[in-house]
Amino acid sequence: MNNFEFMAPTKLIFGKDTIKRVKDEIPKDKKILMTYGGGSIRKNGVYKQVMEALSEHNVVEFGGIEPNPKYETLMKAVEIVKNENIDFLLAVGGGSTLDGTKFIAAASKFEGDPWDILIKGAEIKDAIPLADIITLPATGSEMNCGAVISRLSTNEKFPFMSPLVYPKFSIIDPTTTYSLPEKQTVNGIVDTYVHTMEQYATCEVNTPLQDEWMLGLIKTLMVEGKKVLKNPNDYEARANVFWCATCGLNYWMSLGCVQDWSTHMIGHELTALYGIDHGESLAVVLPRVWKNRKCDKMRKLAKMAVEIFGANEFLPKNILADITIKKTKKFFESIGRRTKLADYGIDRADAAKKISERFRQRGTVLGEKCNIGPDEVYEILMHC
Amino acid sequence: MNNFEFMAPTKLIFGKDTIKRVKDEIPKDKKILMTYGGGSIRKNGVYKQVMEALSEHNVVEFGGIEPNPKYETLMKAVEIVKNENIDFLLAVGGGSTLDGTKFIAAASKFEGDPWDILIKGAEIKDAIPLADIITLPATGSEMNCGAVISRLSTNEKFPFMSPLVYPKFSIIDPTTTYSLPEKQTVNGIVDTYVHTMEQYATCEVNTPLQDEWMLGLIKTLMVEGKKVLKNPNDYEARANVFWCATCGLNYWMSLGCVQDWSTHMIGHELTALYGIDHGESLAVVLPRVWKNRKCDKMRKLAKMAVEIFGANEFLPKNILADITIKKTKKFFESIGRRTKLADYGIDRADAAKKISERFRQRGTVLGEKCNIGPDEVYEILMHC
Repeated sequence: MNNFEFMAPTKLIFGKDTIKRVKDEIPKDKKILMTYGGGSIRKNGVYKQVMEALSEHNVVEFGGIEPNPKYETLMKAVEIVKNENIDFLLAVGGGSTLDGTKFIAAASKFEGDPWDILIKGAEIKDAIPLADIITLPATGSEMNCGAVISRLSTNEKFPFMSPLVYPKFSIIDPTTTYSLPEKQTVNGIVDTYVHTMEQYATCEVNTPLQDEWMLGLIKTLMVEGKKVLKNPNDYEARANVFWCATCGLNYWMSLGCVQDWSTHMIGHELTALYGIDHGESLAVVLPRVWKNRKCDKMRKLAKMAVEIFGANEFLPKNILADITIKKTKKFFESIGRRTKLADYGIDRADAAKKISERFRQRGTVLGEKCNIGPDEVYEILMHC
Repeated sequence: MNNFEFMAPTKLIFGKDTIKRVKDEIPKDKKILMTYGGGSIRKNGVYKQVMEALSEHNVVEFGGIEPNPKYETLMKAVEIVKNENIDFLLAVGGGSTLDGTKFIAAASKFEGDPWDILIKGAEIKDAIPLADIITLPATGSEMNCGAVISRLSTNEKFPFMSPLVYPKFSIIDPTTTYSLPEKQTVNGIVDTYVHTMEQYATCEVNTPLQDEWMLGLIKTLMVEGKKVLKNPNDYEARANVFWCATCGLNYWMSLGCVQDWSTHMIGHELTALYGIDHGESLAVVLPRVWKNRKCDKMRKLAKMAVEIFGANEFLPKNILADITIKKTKKFFESIGRRTKLADYGIDRADAAKKISERFRQRGTVLGEKCNIGPDEVYEILMHC
C-alpha cells in the first residue's frame, strides 16, 4: 500500500425530505448566489423546495450552466459575484452545475486570468465558500474537491482540483432523481463505473481492502442500476445508486492505491471536439485503454472476472482479463450505452489524429505508469 | 437505506516514516500535553521520533494512562492542563491513550463534575483540540469522536461521543506495530472484527453497498490478520490490518445502516467487573448475542456464511446463520483468542446475575431493535 493523506471535510446530508435542511446550514448573514442549469429543477419541484427553505435568506440566482460547463458562461457568474458582493455559492442540480460553481468560487477570488487555473494549474489561494443540493448521481463532485471545465472558443476541457472548493455541505435527496431522463441515468451509471475502474484497474500495490470495496461498488451498481432503469421510482434502488456515485469519486475507496484516469483524459477530448456526452465517451474509451494496457492491469482485471463476472479462477489471467473487458462492454450495451465511436457518428481516424496531436503538443502522458503517450492514444482511438 | 448525516473532519496521514510530520501539523505557538501509556513508546522508538520532531515546540508530558483508561488517572491530567495552560493534546500510543485523551480534552473545559459526561451523557460544549500518533490497530478511535472510560472506584465503564473530540489529525505509521505483543495484535483483530459486525449483523434495511464493504473488510482482516501473526514484520500485512481497524470504526462503511453494539455494552461490563481484556470480552459475547437474536439477524448472518465462509447458498437461512456463528468462533480460536467465560476463570452465573442486574437498575435495553433487555442479557451470559 502506498502512503497517503486524506480528509473529507464536506458534511453529507443524505436521504428523503432533506432539502429543507439547507435553511439551517447556511448562515443568515450570507448573500447567496444560487446556481443551476437548464431549468429541470423548476420542473421537478426542487427549485420550489429550495426557495421556500431559503425564504429568509438573501438569494441571487444564476441559471443556464450547461452540461460540460463553459468557461464563458461561468465568467458571467464571476461578474455577478463581484458586483453583488456574493459570499456564499449554492449549486442546485447535477455535477456540471456543481463543477461550474467550484470554478466560479475559485475564479471570483483569483488574481490574474482564471483560465490559468485550468491550463497552467495556477495555484488557488482563496475561494468563496460553496455548498450544493445535488440531483444527479454521476460525478461524485459532491464530496470531492475537483471539477472539469470546458472552453467553447478553443474546444478544450480541463480538470482542476483545490481543497478550497470542497463543498461545505452536500444535500442528497434520492427522490429528486425519479424524474431524470433515462439517458442521464445511464450516463451516471457509466460514469460511476468508470470512476471506480480508473482507481481499481491499475497495476497492483497490495491493497486488498480497497479492491474489495471497489469491486463491491461495481457489483452493487450493476444490480441497483438495472433496478432504477426498470423502475425509476424505486426509492431504495435510487438511494443505492446515488450512494455508489458519491463513493465512486470521493477517493475514500482507493486510498493507498495508484490511479489511472487515462480513459477520462481521452474522453474529455472526445467531448470537447465532438460534443458527445461524458458518459458516452467513457463507455467507448475504457475497454480500449484496457486492451492496450492489459499487461499492466492483468492481475486486477483477472480478479474482477472471477469476483464480478463469475469466471473460473483457474483460467489463465490473460483470458480472465479479456472476459472483464468483454463483459464490461456488454454491461454498458445492456443498459443502452453504445461503445463504438462510429455509433456516435465520429470518424475514429480523425479522432485518433487530432487527439494524439493535442497530447503531443501539450507533452501529456497518461496512465498509472505514465506509459500512455500520444502514440498509444492514437492506437487506442483507432480501436474505438 | 436510512437517512444519514456524516462528516470525517480528521486529517489522516498514513504510511511509512510519517511520524515526523507531526512537526508541521501543530502550530508552534501551542503548549502541548503529550499523553502516553505504560511506556512501550520508549522501547519501540516512537517517543524519540516524536520528541525530535517536536524539538521546537513547548511540550509537557503525561504518561501512565492504563488500558481501559481510568477516570481517576485522567483527572490528574486535567489538573495539569489547567495549571499549565495547555492548549493542545497529543496522544501517542494505543486506543486507550487516545480515548483517555479525548476525555481529558472534554473534561478540562467542562463546568461541573466531568463524570456526568459518562454517567448522564452531559453535553460537551467545548474541548481542547487534540490529535494523535496511533500505534495500535484496534479501536478505530483515530477517526471517530467516541471514547470509552472506566472508573476504578465503582468498577464501571462507559462510552461517550462528541464532535468536539474528533482528532485534528491522526498519524498512522504501520511499522510502529512490528513490536506489538502478540496478545495485543490478536485483541486488535478481534476488536476490528466485532466493530464491523456490530454494524453489519443487524436487521436488514437494504444497504447492499455497505454490506459489500463490511464483508470485504472481514475477508481482508481474516487473511491479513493471519499474515501479521505469522510474520510480525510484514509491512504490507501490517498496513492492511491497520487500515481495516481504522475503517472498522469510522462509521463510513455503515452509513444508512442500523447498528447493534450490544456485544460491546455487555463486554464493557465484563471488563469493568472482572478485568478481562476488551478483545477477550468481545470474543466471548458476540457468538452468544447472535444465537440469542438469530431471528433478527438471520438474513445478514446467512449472507455472510455464503460470501465469507463459502457455504452453499441454497441451504436454509437458519443453517447458514449457524455456520457464521460457528465459523466466527473458530476464527477467534484459530488466532488464539478463547471464547468461553470459564477460559478466563469467570463464573458465568455470577456474571449473568451481576450484569443483568446492573442493566435492570440503569433501565438499559440493547440491540438495533432495542429488544435485548436484562432478561436477554442474563440468558446470553448464561450461554457464555
